[in-house]
Amino acid sequence: MVGGVKAGAAPLERLRIERPTFLVDRERVAGNIQRMVDRAAAADVDLRPHFKTHRSRDIGRWFRDFGVSSITVSSVEMARYFVGDGWNDITVAFPVNPREISYVAELSEHARLSVLVDSVASVELVAGIRAAGLRAWVKVDTGYRRAGIDWEDDEELLAVGRAAHRAGLELAGVLTHNGLVYRERGRDAVRRVHREGVERARLARDLLSAAGLGDLAVSIGDTPGIGSGGPLDGVDEIRPGNFVFNDLTQVAIGSCTSDEVAVAVACPVVSVYSRRGEAVLYGGSVHLGSESLEQDGATAYGRVCPNWPVEADPGAPVVRLSQEHGVVRLEGEGARPMEPGDLACVLPVHSCITGYLHSRYLTLDGEWLDTMRA
Amino acid sequence: MVGGVKAGAAPLERLRIERPTFLVDRERVAGNIQRMVDRAAAADVDLRPHFKTHRSRDIGRWFRDFGVSSITVSSVEMARYFVGDGWNDITVAFPVNPREISYVAELSEHARLSVLVDSVASVELVAGIRAAGLRAWVKVDTGYRRAGIDWEDDEELLAVGRAAHRAGLELAGVLTHNGLVYRERGRDAVRRVHREGVERARLARDLLSAAGLGDLAVSIGDTPGIGSGGPLDGVDEIRPGNFVFNDLTQVAIGSCTSDEVAVAVACPVVSVYSRRGEAVLYGGSVHLGSESLEQDGATAYGRVCPNWPVEADPGAPVVRLSQEHGVVRLEGEGARPMEPGDLACVLPVHSCITGYLHSRYLTLDGEWLDTMRA
Repeated sequence: MVGGVKAGAAPLERLRIERPTFLVDRERVAGNIQRMVDRAAAADVDLRPHFKTHRSRDIGRWFRDFGVSSITVSSVEMARYFVGDGWNDITVAFPVNPREISYVAELSEHARLSVLVDSVASVELVAGIRAAGLRAWVKVDTGYRRAGIDWEDDEELLAVGRAAHRAGLELAGVLTHNGLVYRERGRDAVRRVHREGVERARLARDLLSAAGLGDLAVSIGDTPGIGSGGPLDGVDEIRPGNFVFNDLTQVAIGSCTSDEVAVAVACPVVSVYSRRGEAVLYGGSVHLGSESLEQDGATAYGRVCPNWPVEADPGAPVVRLSQEHGVVRLEGEGARPMEPGDLACVLPVHSCITGYLHSRYLTLDGEWLDTMRA
Repeated sequence: MVGGVKAGAAPLERLRIERPTFLVDRERVAGNIQRMVDRAAAADVDLRPHFKTHRSRDIGRWFRDFGVSSITVSSVEMARYFVGDGWNDITVAFPVNPREISYVAELSEHARLSVLVDSVASVELVAGIRAAGLRAWVKVDTGYRRAGIDWEDDEELLAVGRAAHRAGLELAGVLTHNGLVYRERGRDAVRRVHREGVERARLARDLLSAAGLGDLAVSIGDTPGIGSGGPLDGVDEIRPGNFVFNDLTQVAIGSCTSDEVAVAVACPVVSVYSRRGEAVLYGGSVHLGSESLEQDGATAYGRVCPNWPVEADPGAPVVRLSQEHGVVRLEGEGARPMEPGDLACVLPVHSCITGYLHSRYLTLDGEWLDTMRA
């Protein structure tokens, strides 16, 4: 720290920000990647980070500098974008979409793709394209009730595994996303739910392995379980995504600290209404996202961090949002005076969604980063 | 109706939809514009539709066919986009942003711009650029507590009005957005809240007029108040936006019928889990938006309309959302069987936000419409 300004970080005013702008602290991103690489190495598991959080070719290249060579994406379109930047080992962690199956075949000529199957029909669809090198993961639902075969449904698990075997489709193993951890608060609670999910994934894998369906791996997702230090025994691969940016949700869960949040939306202050103790930011749901957190009896759509990233503590909540407006409370804990023309840095509730709303990101040293939507 | 297919509407299957796609029914949009034009004419008020809902040059041109020549936008960037397509009478209905004031000056050379003032400082900022033809509206808060001077704060209203007068800034009148109507259900309740908002705006205007600040107009916003047939006595200008598309919220409020909803997101069905009675759509919060409606004790992030727009009734709710996944209930009222590979048309909860997430829109006759993000 030199004169109150973090060494290496340009003061925000140098960036000439005029409109709501998604800021990325390059040093914090690097720290977040380094910690996850170290965690994977210590646990002896493969790291296949989920790139849906940033969707940025430029940030993808930062990962390469840490030796990352295999990635996860959430759509065929995103796979195509990253194949275009030289990534050649990609898991599309989304149920295979019959309407895009021809693109899966095309992309398989340029990269080693893995896709998800969760029914006999999806196995037949994937096997039918006879794409070289294409692998499939059996998507297993360990309780989140989003996608996948119920971990307790032995009959369906075996039917799908055997259909793959019969069709000559290479099975990689079972893949899960235990979204239940997002409902927990505190590392102990998260670890307990995480441990249960891993156990269920392993049982599903063991069932398929015992049926002679090959040497199958277990792949799990999610930043909270891994960031909270949940056990990784019996896990072969981890696919966290959010950790690269982090956000207020991860802080609330306890899987990161506030000085590990690597992104914020810089919003011009446009109006200050002292009489009612509120200010209006140019920064609404199309810039911050509409997700909220309940904290201390109040709903926050983000929190202003007045001197971010020099100071990291989330301050006054954004209490109401509309399309372009964000209303901030000027009184109470963490609040500081604001004037029209100031910049308010807002820490996002859910950085994956907030990032998606911006077609470019600005680093603190003034470089614009490309995203899929640029 | 011919053979179950609406005359003139191409069956969706002809559109070869592969990914979540924002669909626009051109005939319904035209009907929605026509009704609003008629309503404005009947009430003898000026119509200055808010273009933030569609942000599309192409849809803007459809408005021109109905004689609309003055518009509202929510940002300077949006003003620039529409000036680029020949619009030359634009109100930027957002508190003036000090960081973009130089663009306001620039744009004023190409169009008659109006901006909002809500403090003496904002008056001085706007007056300071001395842009020819620039007008200002005093933004008044009639109870919504988003932006504007409190309608009961006579002292501040007069201070701002007099500052404009002193600075030689042309005042157009008072402008309000009564967002409180969105909390109401049923036309009677909406009309009551609407009437109260109009009354407050008129009182603020009367205060300024009585102080000799000129012949001032009253401009009000919002689709619910106007769509519900709220009285427009003493109103000079209306700025509804959402009506062009409508959505489930407007249906719930009672300001439109479900066959006046002109947009839907076509989402491929990717997985069907009969055991738990749910299906997964390729269509998550980055395609539908994260806003929800509480109806019949359940949370809906959208509703599937299986044969939209041939049938209009909203069916099974999207009960959970993540970034790319939408989970739909397959049982209960309005639910119909689905198979992977089907297309599910989802009626949005809030079409302004849903539209923003798509850089292009597809009409039912297969034309791609440009938006600001294209």
